[in-house]
Amino acid sequence: MPSQALPGFRDFYPDELELRAHIFRTWREVARRYGFEEYDGPPLEPLDIYTAKSGAEIVGQLYTFTDKGGREVALRPEMTPTFARMVAARANGLRKPIRWFSMPQLFRYERQQRGRLREHFQLNCDLVGEPGPLADAEVIALAIDVMRAFGLTEHEVRARVSDRRVLRSLLTAAGVSEAQLGDAYQAIDKAERSRAPELAAQLHAAGLGDAAIEGVFAVAAIRGRPALEAALADSPDGGAAAPLFATLDALDAMGLGAYIDVDLSIVRGLAYYTGTVFELFDAGRTLRAICGGGRYDGLLLALGGVDLPALGFGMGDVVLAELLKDRGLAPAPAANVDVFVAAVTPEDVPHALAVAHELRDAGIACEFALGGQPLGRQLKLADARGAGRAIVIGPDDRARGEVVVRDLAGKTQAPVRRDAVLTALASGAAVAHTRSGDG
Amino acid sequence: MPSQALPGFRDFYPDELELRAHIFRTWREVARRYGFEEYDGPPLEPLDIYTAKSGAEIVGQLYTFTDKGGREVALRPEMTPTFARMVAARANGLRKPIRWFSMPQLFRYERQQRGRLREHFQLNCDLVGEPGPLADAEVIALAIDVMRAFGLTEHEVRARVSDRRVLRSLLTAAGVSEAQLGDAYQAIDKAERSRAPELAAQLHAAGLGDAAIEGVFAVAAIRGRPALEAALADSPDGGAAAPLFATLDALDAMGLGAYIDVDLSIVRGLAYYTGTVFELFDAGRTLRAICGGGRYDGLLLALGGVDLPALGFGMGDVVLAELLKDRGLAPAPAANVDVFVAAVTPEDVPHALAVAHELRDAGIACEFALGGQPLGRQLKLADARGAGRAIVIGPDDRARGEVVVRDLAGKTQAPVRRDAVLTALASGAAVAHTRSGDG
Repeated sequence: MPSQALPGFRDFYPDELELRAHIFRTWREVARRYGFEEYDGPPLEPLDIYTAKSGAEIVGQLYTFTDKGGREVALRPEMTPTFARMVAARANGLRKPIRWFSMPQLFRYERQQRGRLREHFQLNCDLVGEPGPLADAEVIALAIDVMRAFGLTEHEVRARVSDRRVLRSLLTAAGVSEAQLGDAYQAIDKAERSRAPELAAQLHAAGLGDAAIEGVFAVAAIRGRPALEAALADSPDGGAAAPLFATLDALDAMGLGAYIDVDLSIVRGLAYYTGTVFELFDAGRTLRAICGGGRYDGLLLALGGVDLPALGFGMGDVVLAELLKDRGLAPAPAANVDVFVAAVTPEDVPHALAVAHELRDAGIACEFALGGQPLGRQLKLADARGAGRAIVIGPDDRARGEVVVRDLAGKTQAPVRRDAVLTALASGAAVAHTRSGDG
Repeated sequence: MPSQALPGFRDFYPDELELRAHIFRTWREVARRYGFEEYDGPPLEPLDIYTAKSGAEIVGQLYTFTDKGGREVALRPEMTPTFARMVAARANGLRKPIRWFSMPQLFRYERQQRGRLREHFQLNCDLVGEPGPLADAEVIALAIDVMRAFGLTEHEVRARVSDRRVLRSLLTAAGVSEAQLGDAYQAIDKAERSRAPELAAQLHAAGLGDAAIEGVFAVAAIRGRPALEAALADSPDGGAAAPLFATLDALDAMGLGAYIDVDLSIVRGLAYYTGTVFELFDAGRTLRAICGGGRYDGLLLALGGVDLPALGFGMGDVVLAELLKDRGLAPAPAANVDVFVAAVTPEDVPHALAVAHELRDAGIACEFALGGQPLGRQLKLADARGAGRAIVIGPDDRARGEVVVRDLAGKTQAPVRRDAVLTALASGAAVAHTRSGDG
């Protein structure tokens, strides 16, 4: 028998699933506060919804195959084509702006990448039907508020924000032609990770002159709103940054300005972004991006045939989980049950079952021993499960119409009337008049 | 562009996802009450973990392909082999009994089945390490309590329970040989859906004599505990039903006896069951089984190499969703947001953003208009989102240090101090001293 999952796929044992569940719950909770509705699509889709799009980076890494019906299919590498298909199919009936989120598992097949995962989960939040800068602020704020909900402050996470409209304006002013913009974006995207002479050579090969190349580097180096304002003051199209500044002002009004770094080295790899682009990073930049997104006003028309402005972001679970563990923000292991019900003799078992079921009906997580173990072993299991309290049912207790409620941490216990067990557990009264137990 | 998902795959629009989320939440909540921990595995697994097992029914319907690394892989058709692999890998370190659940999406590829789905979600609950009848009661009780949590009573759902040990004993006594048991189980499994002469002919072909064939039909017709007790009274191995009866007694003690039908026509299709077997059906039997499971004491040894007794069940989302919709038990459509924040003039927008963010930080779902719409259109959007209240912020209100809280259902409104908005929303006080508004 194979004793392992496929390379790049994760097993989630309960202790590992706990962190994943914490991430999912937090994603859902913050999206809900923003009025975003959850949707989902199939993990398997027709191949051509991915190849139709320009994201060349993704197409080479597709998990693709031919199904038994002869269809070319792929395990979804990203959610946007599914999202575009679904929005397009009901575009007229959906109230704008559309605020949707999803938490798909995504797949990619990269060769020769030892240790890299071939699947991950990704929060996708998209807002459709609103071209103005408040929508951009709303989506960036949602991403930041997810960080805040995890307990990550502006000292731990930074939102680096730029705008393709601003980049275009500044680059054009520096002498970059329309046809060379793509090469300039690529160079800016690589500016942090590559050596300048290499990038300059590539730009030169793309036909840029020395002044334009210098302009590209100057734009990529702009950090902070004052520096951007200064650069724009020399620019013929000083209004290109108006939407970006309106977005930044809105984020300030929301109280989130402290998280924001204006950073013109951010362009995002994908060709389809048309306006605001942003990425979230850990402040020390020791990890990959936590989240990336932006405005893609032409994409729904290209993918789904409906002309609606849109923007959104994707946030993966892997980098986020690393960061949370690193910062001590992963949740502490939870107890399996609140209460353990123990039966002293076999005759007590039906009574234990009745009590356990009563507790469960009241929403209390509860377990009992299934194999007729002696009381000591039952209480050991109770401890192992992290139960805060045990209810012990023995013949003498039953004769008195009582059970014993034992506080497993404090090693104290008290008798409680059988018909008052729920009340006692809810009020904690059982512990209030405890007498010392021997554990 | 393809405007549809692949055949047999579902898109979940927000209104459809709401029912799925209700099902998932309820599954998780009831499993939690029973002290079950959630796990998950990969949706893609090595093919041989499925072909190694005897479930021939499943193997013919696998969604299988060769990956780019030359591995034979399959989209998981069931969770048990993944579960067995995971338990086996850490068997020594896991505290018994292991109580685990998962909610995987499962896949199958059936040709020629128009309208049938090729994916569904399934709650899998398994309990490992306990051979006794209380474990069986625990697992059946969990399945029934899931039904109860959905609001389904014993008049709407029935748990049909049998036991392979009892079947084997009765069939052997009727003259069925060990080698013929599999054929007899198959005939019993089909007894409700096939014509008797056909089944008799198949049993005859398998070598059963007339008396044995009559015995098979007689066993398949046993309904209710008294009828089973009567049949066992004539049987040489009257004790074969002791575990089943202990399980039934435990379910009575839990208060769930009213849901149980002893029904010896239940055997379950898969070969690996060794003891209790059960299925949940809608009382009118108009739908397929809601849930099926049983004890499979030899399977973990066969699949994972660890010899541990185990039992569990699988409950799909599709039949369950049909039943809930049919009985009016699907949740009512939820509002997108609790509160809508409206700005009267552009100058009010930053204040609206601040209020909205304050509410969201307090966990209140909240939306505002992104495009500078007139107040009337903002309130129309608020209505469309199902917001119970709107907070209207205008210049005059701001000058007084106030906002207006409007009850959108009651069409009433009241001024509230800006710094008391949260308190007012929490207490509902804003509605208490309302004056009539014009909507």
